[in-house]
Amino acid sequence: MTYAAPIHEMRFVLDAIADLPAIAGLPGYEEATPDLVSAILEEAGKLAGEVIAPLNHPGDREGSVFENGVVRTPDGFQEAYRQFVEGGWNALPFDTDFGGQGLPWCLATAVQEMWQAANLSFGLCPLLTAGAVELLQAHGNDRQKTDYLAKMISGEWTGTMNLTEPQAGSDVGALKTKAVPNGDHYLITGQKIFITWGEHDCADNIVHMVLARLPDAPEGTRGISLFLVPKFVVNEDGTLGPHNDLRCVSLEHKLGINASPTAVMSYGDSGGAVGYLVGAENQGMACMFTMMNNARLAVGLQGVAIAERAYQQARAYAFERVQSKAIDGGKESVKIIRHPDVRRMLATMKARTEAARALAYLAAAALDRAKREPDDAERAAAQARLDLLIPLTKAWCTDMGCEVASLGVQVHGGMGFIEETGAAQHFRDARILPIYEGTNGIQALDLLGRKLLRDKGAAMTQLILELRAGLPEDEGLRAPLAAAIATLDETTAWLLDKGAQDIKRGAAAATPYQSLTASVLGAWLLARSAVEAAKGDDKAFAAAKLKTARFYADNLLGEVAGLSEAVTRGAESTLAFEDNDF
Amino acid sequence: MTYAAPIHEMRFVLDAIADLPAIAGLPGYEEATPDLVSAILEEAGKLAGEVIAPLNHPGDREGSVFENGVVRTPDGFQEAYRQFVEGGWNALPFDTDFGGQGLPWCLATAVQEMWQAANLSFGLCPLLTAGAVELLQAHGNDRQKTDYLAKMISGEWTGTMNLTEPQAGSDVGALKTKAVPNGDHYLITGQKIFITWGEHDCADNIVHMVLARLPDAPEGTRGISLFLVPKFVVNEDGTLGPHNDLRCVSLEHKLGINASPTAVMSYGDSGGAVGYLVGAENQGMACMFTMMNNARLAVGLQGVAIAERAYQQARAYAFERVQSKAIDGGKESVKIIRHPDVRRMLATMKARTEAARALAYLAAAALDRAKREPDDAERAAAQARLDLLIPLTKAWCTDMGCEVASLGVQVHGGMGFIEETGAAQHFRDARILPIYEGTNGIQALDLLGRKLLRDKGAAMTQLILELRAGLPEDEGLRAPLAAAIATLDETTAWLLDKGAQDIKRGAAAATPYQSLTASVLGAWLLARSAVEAAKGDDKAFAAAKLKTARFYADNLLGEVAGLSEAVTRGAESTLAFEDNDF
Repeated sequence: MTYAAPIHEMRFVLDAIADLPAIAGLPGYEEATPDLVSAILEEAGKLAGEVIAPLNHPGDREGSVFENGVVRTPDGFQEAYRQFVEGGWNALPFDTDFGGQGLPWCLATAVQEMWQAANLSFGLCPLLTAGAVELLQAHGNDRQKTDYLAKMISGEWTGTMNLTEPQAGSDVGALKTKAVPNGDHYLITGQKIFITWGEHDCADNIVHMVLARLPDAPEGTRGISLFLVPKFVVNEDGTLGPHNDLRCVSLEHKLGINASPTAVMSYGDSGGAVGYLVGAENQGMACMFTMMNNARLAVGLQGVAIAERAYQQARAYAFERVQSKAIDGGKESVKIIRHPDVRRMLATMKARTEAARALAYLAAAALDRAKREPDDAERAAAQARLDLLIPLTKAWCTDMGCEVASLGVQVHGGMGFIEETGAAQHFRDARILPIYEGTNGIQALDLLGRKLLRDKGAAMTQLILELRAGLPEDEGLRAPLAAAIATLDETTAWLLDKGAQDIKRGAAAATPYQSLTASVLGAWLLARSAVEAAKGDDKAFAAAKLKTARFYADNLLGEVAGLSEAVTRGAESTLAFEDNDF
Repeated sequence: MTYAAPIHEMRFVLDAIADLPAIAGLPGYEEATPDLVSAILEEAGKLAGEVIAPLNHPGDREGSVFENGVVRTPDGFQEAYRQFVEGGWNALPFDTDFGGQGLPWCLATAVQEMWQAANLSFGLCPLLTAGAVELLQAHGNDRQKTDYLAKMISGEWTGTMNLTEPQAGSDVGALKTKAVPNGDHYLITGQKIFITWGEHDCADNIVHMVLARLPDAPEGTRGISLFLVPKFVVNEDGTLGPHNDLRCVSLEHKLGINASPTAVMSYGDSGGAVGYLVGAENQGMACMFTMMNNARLAVGLQGVAIAERAYQQARAYAFERVQSKAIDGGKESVKIIRHPDVRRMLATMKARTEAARALAYLAAAALDRAKREPDDAERAAAQARLDLLIPLTKAWCTDMGCEVASLGVQVHGGMGFIEETGAAQHFRDARILPIYEGTNGIQALDLLGRKLLRDKGAAMTQLILELRAGLPEDEGLRAPLAAAIATLDETTAWLLDKGAQDIKRGAAAATPYQSLTASVLGAWLLARSAVEAAKGDDKAFAAAKLKTARFYADNLLGEVAGLSEAVTRGAESTLAFEDNDF
């Protein structure tokens, strides 16, 4: 149940797929030298593997506990978080103005994968803080930045996102929490649910980013404003003042990520919690969208991380567990890695995980370029690519994480179903990923509506062009990839035509289209990895990359034919169902 | 979180797919009149829905508990089991000589689906008893039958299967438990793990069927004998004697089915547990195979059951939960069933579940025919069909159960991850099904080795002939089905050729081949259901059946193309991996 960060693989994907050397040449990223990158990956790997990973299984069993109004995180979490902050890890990708290190997001992505793989529950705390930091960096006023940002960038204070209310999950516009002006601040009243790390004992202050409505605000998403609501109000001199009028009401009893406290938060039970408007009135949703891209990439990355963790555990078990004779003879029982079906499962886990990692890092690289490319056109092109990759990364990497974690259980046989083994925890933990930060169905609608139909397929057409231009020479890869890209092209054309004519039909086709697109991209990225690896000195690594790409092309990529049918024929069959047919 | 047995659907599948009217005409099954069938389904549905299902969620939270050497099942289980026994439900399919009702297995299958859907943990108790009953019916001597069988058929005493030891999971031949002759009985010593309902408080006696080795027995599976080892030895007069030298050591802490006590059992701590040889010495594995067919069908059926339960819950939620506006306009938030992607998920759940139910009932009908067809050739043909259907039913229905339970979580969004909702329990409970009673990988090897290569494809060829002969006229179904059957045929031919030449290659291809075959069969059974339903008076039911068949053909059946590639190209890519490539 240990975790060792796959540093060699991460560095390869950073260099060969995300093109970190080029990104390090962008203005502001000059510090990301090869030596610094190596040092960061090494040191982060140590903290993740030696300190944070060992807390994962005990943390699941103990869980975060709510007693007498106080949330207690599992044994060891406080100390691990203290080391995380002291090491400066939280500050990696943030602006240098308030103490950030200003390093590229793609590098931070590799490092974040380590925290999430080591301990998904632990990793959620900085993940949420990062979202709050981005909001304040982009929309906070000087006072807010001075009072809060430096402490949040260092990680001394943590952040949360308060969107969901009982009647308002995916439909954020339906929320009812109120904000009433009161001098230099607002008074917030309402209840929020599913607040990740909403209350805990690892930091001195918790900064809640809360969506609420002003009096007489328009209905729906256009009447939502964003507020900063600290657990402890900050005094003029920067010291902590009184406890704000907010409290944790309860923690959820969940399927997984049990060490991550998921709070029901109540604001203003005694008249109103002090909150500060972030950005303009009624612009809360627009503010939120600035952080949503990163958060969705981060959740996609969690899918990669849990898959890597599950893969490492299943691999170790397969090379250790002796059971049954080999199918081609021999008198002795063998390690189960000798059984072809176990090899098939492990190869599936490896191929899916590496394809998803390549996708997630590629998206992070697009984020860096969208921020830092000096040329306007290049920056805009990177932004268009990023916008396209975000739903694909969030949805596909998280579906993949669930699939790989389930295969990890299966490799363990009966032991996989026993909680002590640890494989079951990955299976439970992974299951939240396709749900939160926008369900994968919502990602598919985003892909369809905002990323495909809105620009009439321009960004997708550009991507397909690049895929075609980047076909590998290896014939075992080239033919299936070319066929799959052609299927993607045809299916895209169908959806641009039929989906635009009838949005319901498009919506019924959106999920299989999303899976199809990501699978083609994943296969292509593995093929490109094989080509890039062949240029290096590590022949064994290059050979494994080629086999992995071929495994994907032969065993997994065939799914695109069925997914294409599910788009072009399936959507109509779905819509044929009347309510009483269910 | 309620469960209502889908009686109309069950009756339809029994009549139209399993051909219960014809089975009721077989010698010994005459009592299965249409009226009796209706009455049984109605009454079983009441017990399942009103008594057993409400215990499912509380039973999960409470779990079976081991304290001071005693296992306590959750509140309500004792009383529910008492009602189950008093209603005579346990006796349904067993021989009438010892109090069984002698009804067809396919009818018992529909009834068993209800227990399993109502409460998978509860349903495991009679499932295991059924296995022990079959062993004794087939191999027990008169004394064993007199002393034990009637009480086990009534359900007053329950049965268990003791195969697994820590070093011997899938590889039963590696077991080490010893049996030493001692007068009219044997003394058993050893430890067994994963013993479902191995100790509990719902019955007066527990009859353990234990695999063990005699002194000087040959190594491997040829040296295994089967023993009946009762918790309480039965006196000459049929009363219960002293507690046998066996005990529960602990219960496992599992991912799911928490109310089902999974025991570590120790035999002979004080010198040896009294055991009685069942069948001949060293013939234990042969005895076990007589019950394995039924047990594997029963586990496949559990997959159908958990899928039905998850589907009912997700459907209820989708018709109740209001969230977001419809994609094609409107100002009000709508019930989520209005969202096309939710409809797609529910339709997937429905189509997979109904296809799997048809497969499971069809297999049960083959079991009835294999037992009761008067004509030798017909009986042999039914047995060959049954042998072919068993791995397909066990593996595919259980994989499907996991997929559908996961979709059930997804339909619930964030609420699906909260344990109180209940959807997560189905997701956890389902995960054991692809593992126990022979992992699905082992089913695939059984399909390949014993069911395909051994008869050189004769049984499969016969099945494919029947599929081709039974194509529906509906053009929307006929074309995709014909193409899928052709793919099955070609892939089978490849495997018969290449898999026989190189068994490792066959083994690497076995799982995708299994999935492919079952998916084609499932789609065909849905098409046949549509044809049969059209002959009936219920036009709404017939319309739904046709839409479901088309949904499957358009949205799901396309997977066979990729699965075929995974066989014909994929196996080689799998075997290309060296150990150090992982």
